[in-house]
Amino acid sequence: MATSTYQVYGRFWIQTKQGAFLGVGRIELLELVQKYGSISKAAKSMKMSYRRAWELIDSMNQHAKKPLVVTQTGGQNGGGASLTTTGEKAIVQFRKIEDIHKKFLQVQTKKFKL
Amino acid sequence: MATSTYQVYGRFWIQTKQGAFLGVGRIELLELVQKYGSISKAAKSMKMSYRRAWELIDSMNQHAKKPLVVTQTGGQNGGGASLTTTGEKAIVQFRKIEDIHKKFLQVQTKKFKL
Repeated sequence: MATSTYQVYGRFWIQTKQGAFLGVGRIELLELVQKYGSISKAAKSMKMSYRRAWELIDSMNQHAKKPLVVTQTGGQNGGGASLTTTGEKAIVQFRKIEDIHKKFLQVQTKKFKL
Repeated sequence: MATSTYQVYGRFWIQTKQGAFLGVGRIELLELVQKYGSISKAAKSMKMSYRRAWELIDSMNQHAKKPLVVTQTGGQNGGGASLTTTGEKAIVQFRKIEDIHKKFLQVQTKKFKL
């Protein structure tokens, strides 16, 4: 039997009644859209197809009361895209929960003793 | 766009450097061994093969500093099994983390607004 330390791991995500809404991958995509102002550049930097990125963004927009991402001229074929206030709020809140969750797991890891 | 409420979901598990140690399925198995005093009965009530249950228990015993389950006469072929103090502690602590985790997710769900 190994002398080992126990580590509490975890993950979280956000759902609506319609299903998956936000997870770490979708948040990363939103952050990259914010950074590049473009869905295609965001997709590329995640090694994701444009189609997949667009589907994920569409899914997020459909789930939320207000869209998270809006596209300018060019539409689906690679025109500019930017985050709405709702999109920005989604990132901030998700990353905040992530921080607290990480701390929660650290505390539980310290406490766990067999 | 749907009028929806956002729900924060999550899960957690415990690892050692050797890999997965405890998750909700393994804890359920330990609880059933505790209840029935038998790995085969525990396995049956989880609709799991005896072999799989034995492998999971062996994995837990290997990861921990002290075994969680000990078998009496009969050994691998269905003799009695019982939890050690370590096994009991594992259940109690896991279920405690689960409670706090659930509350954490509820609080985050209430706070999340877009």
